[in-house]
Amino acid sequence: MNRLFLIMVFLGVPAVLVGSIIHLSDIPIFILSCLTIIALASFIGRATESLAIVSGPRVGGLLNATFGNAVELIISIFTLKAGLIGIVLASLTGSVLGNLLLVLGVSFFAGGLKYKTQRFGLHDVKYNSGLLIFAVIVAFIIPEIFSQTMDDSATLTLSIGVSIILITLYVAGLFFKLVTHRGVFASGDTTNEEEELPEWSKKKSILILLLSTVAVAFVSEQLVHTFETLGEKFGWTELFIGVIIVAIVGNAAEHFSAITMAMKNRMDVAVEIAVGSTLQVAMFVAPILVLISLFMPESMPLVFTIPELVAMVTATLLVINLSNDGESNWFEGLTLLAAYLIIGIGFFLL
Amino acid sequence: MNRLFLIMVFLGVPAVLVGSIIHLSDIPIFILSCLTIIALASFIGRATESLAIVSGPRVGGLLNATFGNAVELIISIFTLKAGLIGIVLASLTGSVLGNLLLVLGVSFFAGGLKYKTQRFGLHDVKYNSGLLIFAVIVAFIIPEIFSQTMDDSATLTLSIGVSIILITLYVAGLFFKLVTHRGVFASGDTTNEEEELPEWSKKKSILILLLSTVAVAFVSEQLVHTFETLGEKFGWTELFIGVIIVAIVGNAAEHFSAITMAMKNRMDVAVEIAVGSTLQVAMFVAPILVLISLFMPESMPLVFTIPELVAMVTATLLVINLSNDGESNWFEGLTLLAAYLIIGIGFFLL
Amino acid sequence: MNRLFLIMVFLGVPAVLVGSIIHLSDIPIFILSCLTIIALASFIGRATESLAIVSGPRVGGLLNATFGNAVELIISIFTLKAGLIGIVLASLTGSVLGNLLLVLGVSFFAGGLKYKTQRFGLHDVKYNSGLLIFAVIVAFIIPEIFSQTMDDSATLTLSIGVSIILITLYVAGLFFKLVTHRGVFASGDTTNEEEELPEWSKKKSILILLLSTVAVAFVSEQLVHTFETLGEKFGWTELFIGVIIVAIVGNAAEHFSAITMAMKNRMDVAVEIAVGSTLQVAMFVAPILVLISLFMPESMPLVFTIPELVAMVTATLLVINLSNDGESNWFEGLTLLAAYLIIGIGFFLL
Repeated sequence: MNRLFLIMVFLGVPAVLVGSIIHLSDIPIFILSCLTIIALASFIGRATESLAIVSGPRVGGLLNATFGNAVELIISIFTLKAGLIGIVLASLTGSVLGNLLLVLGVSFFAGGLKYKTQRFGLHDVKYNSGLLIFAVIVAFIIPEIFSQTMDDSATLTLSIGVSIILITLYVAGLFFKLVTHRGVFASGDTTNEEEELPEWSKKKSILILLLSTVAVAFVSEQLVHTFETLGEKFGWTELFIGVIIVAIVGNAAEHFSAITMAMKNRMDVAVEIAVGSTLQVAMFVAPILVLISLFMPESMPLVFTIPELVAMVTATLLVINLSNDGESNWFEGLTLLAAYLIIGIGFFLL
Repeated sequence: MNRLFLIMVFLGVPAVLVGSIIHLSDIPIFILSCLTIIALASFIGRATESLAIVSGPRVGGLLNATFGNAVELIISIFTLKAGLIGIVLASLTGSVLGNLLLVLGVSFFAGGLKYKTQRFGLHDVKYNSGLLIFAVIVAFIIPEIFSQTMDDSATLTLSIGVSIILITLYVAGLFFKLVTHRGVFASGDTTNEEEELPEWSKKKSILILLLSTVAVAFVSEQLVHTFETLGEKFGWTELFIGVIIVAIVGNAAEHFSAITMAMKNRMDVAVEIAVGSTLQVAMFVAPILVLISLFMPESMPLVFTIPELVAMVTATLLVINLSNDGESNWFEGLTLLAAYLIIGIGFFLL
Repeated sequence: MNRLFLIMVFLGVPAVLVGSIIHLSDIPIFILSCLTIIALASFIGRATESLAIVSGPRVGGLLNATFGNAVELIISIFTLKAGLIGIVLASLTGSVLGNLLLVLGVSFFAGGLKYKTQRFGLHDVKYNSGLLIFAVIVAFIIPEIFSQTMDDSATLTLSIGVSIILITLYVAGLFFKLVTHRGVFASGDTTNEEEELPEWSKKKSILILLLSTVAVAFVSEQLVHTFETLGEKFGWTELFIGVIIVAIVGNAAEHFSAITMAMKNRMDVAVEIAVGSTLQVAMFVAPILVLISLFMPESMPLVFTIPELVAMVTATLLVINLSNDGESNWFEGLTLLAAYLIIGIGFFLL
């Protein structure tokens, strides 16, 4: 399997490069890019895993989420530059939904097929669920509702204020977790780590992580350019492409690492990847994009469409409810996947 | 008391039969039907209780919910056939509200007057609350919100998709509870079951259960025909009749059994009846009706009115919050009843 | 500090009195009143603390909330009399938001800077969160949503019904806590109470409490009269004044006492003040005002604006999520304050 992914990377990246130069038609580029990203994601997953073994589950999880979302941030900046604000907001929504429902759902499900009940730290759950409610239910809903009786300038001011508050709280949260309350979060799957050896050395892991991230960023950009054609060919709306397609491909890295961890019964790391990545998108990537958009021709307010917001809010409530006992099983995973499917059909038909 | 119910059944059922043949006016039929159903409900309750003692609390609870909702399913199919989609959706809403707020509320309250604090299994609570959020908050809200910017055909497609997903997850949930994670749910009120003896034999219980269910179905149908007249006479809207009247009478069986169990301090069974019945309505009866309606002159989308949806969502959040510690007392029961009263007044005035 | 407050009270109260007689301009009266109320609040805080040491945390908390809200009730009746229904509803909203997010947030934050993790009784949390959901999510949302398809008369009838149910349940809750389930709530911060001595005798505390409350009521009334001018001068909307300014100044007493308690690690009392006060506003002050308004020229329905309602609902969900483990730390406090800031900016820009 790993050998196959290696071949896919060494064939896929040059192929996409050549394809983009010779202006290959969009459908083969789309398929090539998807496959290459999935292969690259496996490398990112393995490199992160090696690093995680060396650095402990928390830093490993953070690394993962960071490398997954660096890609998204880069793609979004290009999209913003092209003035496609709707697609940026849709892909942020898709990231939140994809991580909360799809990545966590597959992790719970796949892990649950192997282990009857899997456990993860309650302190992390508590921290994560508080911030999920804060970000999705307070910081996303308030601008949405209040903007309905505001003019555009006030809406933008509110968006900027909310963005700065989100970033500040996100940074304060890191300080809380890594400095003032470090010991509290240190527990978890100690039983599993005993004799596990990293696949690659620290140095090699970091190198592979960096190279793969750059390659993913390049391939992803080619992928984005095929979306318009795809919409026309298959009758997909921009909303569906942003929320579903970008989310699945753009979160392939988190996806791969989270499931790998879940199947090794290191559910702490899997949850940290899925929810940590969600929080990073909601509390860091989204507000940063609002602030960056101020220097672009068209500014982006932090105002989602009603279906986007409702999907994120219901997904958040479901995830918090299912995870708040620090246990998971295959049926909880299936419930999350069912929710993702319902929301996916909804966006497809919209 | 049991003797009185016996007399009511043996007088009531023939009386309703005769009344429907000689076209008795609607008000006496309404009163007769209600009384007969309540009496029949007591038999269903006692038969289920006997079976529950023989088969354990879980299967007993499932039996109860099934027999209560078989009646509802039959009534709804007749109503669908008459093209009264609004009343079907309203009575589904009423079933959810009636079970969550009224049945659970009276159980908590009546049981709480006798016992200071009553306990029920946390694993059941967790399973139930996850599915309640999934069904009411994801599967009911998404079609509602998304349908507002969709045409009728897309709305129906979405409704069909959501319905199939709901039924699939419901069946997967039974598989989870009864097969893969059977042991997890087996605990509970073992202390109370010690030497309890069933009132009737297994055979006799099943016979009474079947006969009573058939009788309830017949009487309920007569009851439904009186609703139009009642609306005119008393100024009740169809929404109020569906949400409140159908809910109270249609859930008389669950009502009776749940309270009986609560007062015997078998709160596990009482909660299983109330919430299990809610889940069966939301995840099985409602989607089955959507699918059945496809073969009828007018199809029914899974789109409630906004007041119906808001009432179900707020009720769900309240019940999950009150039950998530696995404990109940009279004040929690009163809180649920107060919520039911507020929603009831709302529908009455609408 | 206490000496400074003493001077402020003995200078401030007469100054406001003289100012109101000689018709001093509104800006100095506004500043004078605010300072005086803050100073008076410190006396109320110290008197309540003395009483709390004598009477135990629960009665102390109740005393506090009562004396804080007596002031609000008096101001609101004056405002109702002037027909300013919008400001009354806004200040009720502000009280809920101020107590839940600001008072609780500062308590968690300030207490958390001194103590790594602070604990409070889970039985109280459970009781409070159940009633918060009942009051804000059921009793406030239902009239809001249902009134959108109702005429004014039905809306008022619904408001009256909801108000009577709220008050009844509030009184039943006191009966539950103080009579039938008294022992359950009696635990808590027993470790801290050991040898603590009250600052003032019981008699002196009660006298100071009464005098300060009367003074606060008088000064607050003067303060209210300056609001119109302030709105004009600074471009503040009535909504912003009601929700933010009235909330901060009007809850200064709870504020001061709660923080004092939090910094003494008596988090049980701090939470009881903040959440108890919220519940008293939502379940007692608000419905009493609806009933009182029936005897005034213009009746007040229990229908908030959509932004007011959404702010209260999201704040409630956040607080319940953060407090349901019975633990707090500085970061949870900061999260609550960040939510308050977002909502504050929203109302400022509205």
